[in-house]
Amino acid sequence: MSTSMSNQSDHQLMDLVFIGAGKVATNLAVALTKAGHRVRQVYSRTEMSAKTLADKIGADYTTSVDEIVRGADIYFISITDSALAQLAGTITQGREEALFVHTAGSMSIDILPCPRRGVFYPMQTFSLERMVDFQHVPCFIEAKDADDAKMLHALACDLSDKVYSLSSHDRQYLHLAAVFCCNFSNHCYAIAEKMLADHGVPFSVMLPLIDETAAKAHVMSPVRGQTGPAARGDDNVMNHQQQLLADNPIWQQIYRLMSQDILNFQNSQNSHNSHNSHNSHNSHNSHNSHKLP
Amino acid sequence: MSTSMSNQSDHQLMDLVFIGAGKVATNLAVALTKAGHRVRQVYSRTEMSAKTLADKIGADYTTSVDEIVRGADIYFISITDSALAQLAGTITQGREEALFVHTAGSMSIDILPCPRRGVFYPMQTFSLERMVDFQHVPCFIEAKDADDAKMLHALACDLSDKVYSLSSHDRQYLHLAAVFCCNFSNHCYAIAEKMLADHGVPFSVMLPLIDETAAKAHVMSPVRGQTGPAARGDDNVMNHQQQLLADNPIWQQIYRLMSQDILNFQNSQNSHNSHNSHNSHNSHNSHNSHKLP
Repeated sequence: MSTSMSNQSDHQLMDLVFIGAGKVATNLAVALTKAGHRVRQVYSRTEMSAKTLADKIGADYTTSVDEIVRGADIYFISITDSALAQLAGTITQGREEALFVHTAGSMSIDILPCPRRGVFYPMQTFSLERMVDFQHVPCFIEAKDADDAKMLHALACDLSDKVYSLSSHDRQYLHLAAVFCCNFSNHCYAIAEKMLADHGVPFSVMLPLIDETAAKAHVMSPVRGQTGPAARGDDNVMNHQQQLLADNPIWQQIYRLMSQDILNFQNSQNSHNSHNSHNSHNSHNSHNSHKLP
Repeated sequence: MSTSMSNQSDHQLMDLVFIGAGKVATNLAVALTKAGHRVRQVYSRTEMSAKTLADKIGADYTTSVDEIVRGADIYFISITDSALAQLAGTITQGREEALFVHTAGSMSIDILPCPRRGVFYPMQTFSLERMVDFQHVPCFIEAKDADDAKMLHALACDLSDKVYSLSSHDRQYLHLAAVFCCNFSNHCYAIAEKMLADHGVPFSVMLPLIDETAAKAHVMSPVRGQTGPAARGDDNVMNHQQQLLADNPIWQQIYRLMSQDILNFQNSQNSHNSHNSHNSHNSHNSHNSHKLP
């Protein structure tokens, strides 16, 4: 992975087309427009979403692939990964000179069938209701052509101070790690919200804990910052909590697997730092051969 | 759950003893000392941890249960849940008049065998290296005696603006929800860190995503804020990502269960909001009978 942390000096205003008008397209198109670039046109299958985004950024819109304008500097394809696989051929057809980039973390650059192809992956969780500030959003760039790579890099640097070049191969693992960090941690919040609602406790009581957990990841490795029954190897609590989940087998399995894996991580860390393991009550409960029921 | 959001006026300085010198004890004892209360003594089985905490707050310390002082207003027992189950009888013996409270989210008040017993559960993830600001830490209080409950409530209000009364029964579910929100989301970070290290990508690239995921939980329900392949019902990506995890069966199972449960949550939400389901490309991929392989 190579990095550029500073803005490029050859600031060049680009003519852009957005294919897609969902969460990523909306956030990215708004940010690029704010940075001074011009989105000429938005394409979406659905008129309402095409118009909503187009109105936000003063662009034209269309719902017909045939009417997508020619001659733009960059065509951003920002649709679901499965729609991308289906539509890539149709969209690029007849525009063989143009640079097409997709914004999907998980898809190879080679899903695009045109010669000038690239990837512009802003790694963030986007919503339509909440426009993201791109300044610290890591952007991962790839292009087949060196000049295209330079152009995409410069464009990304207009938005973000964290721009990286990354191959499709390595980006697969980056995206998978992002699914764990974002979607799965968010789903842990969602499970907690549902669990608390059943006992009349508002989800808002969890927010300081969520914030501190995220804040700790800035200053120490998540493995070292881990707390709770599994990190302590506290069998009584783990057994009891699994019983509390008896009426939800998926949550119970998630609990069991997460706890087992936390134990594995802690044991593997403790075996590296065994001189620290006699300083607290915690050490009385860590067995290297620990196995959850 | 009943709430007190304002400081009590009958501010009374307390004489305290801490039994335990781990993460929770250290953070709580430091915060109570800062709030003007006096920790007379720290007990820990391990001299180094007893001395370390005692020195931090200007208290005496002991490593012998017999030498724990008498006549303190409140004895805080803050040791691992399994140590608590083992030691509660020994510690309270001969001090039948005293108020003992434990700080464990998961344990019943009745683990304490003495008549004046209570719980003071500060719901946060604590580390020795990072003293937590208690102002917004939700504190959950319980006591057998009404006057003791009032005293603990007043003490908690000296530290935090979020003090609640909660029964042992409901606190079980609160603590379980906290395990999901904190320990399991943190473990998702830990998995990501390990995964990225194998591909030469620094974990720090994940921090903006982690921060935004936590920040979104403040402004929208985690279910509504969910993004990623499972929320989109994107089978291709999910199948591919499960294959990437082929050499780690635990992570692969966690991936499968989390994705399945995210789909279940989204489908259950979509069935409530079906009028929103035709506005974007995403709708093309949501099947109500969706089942992961």
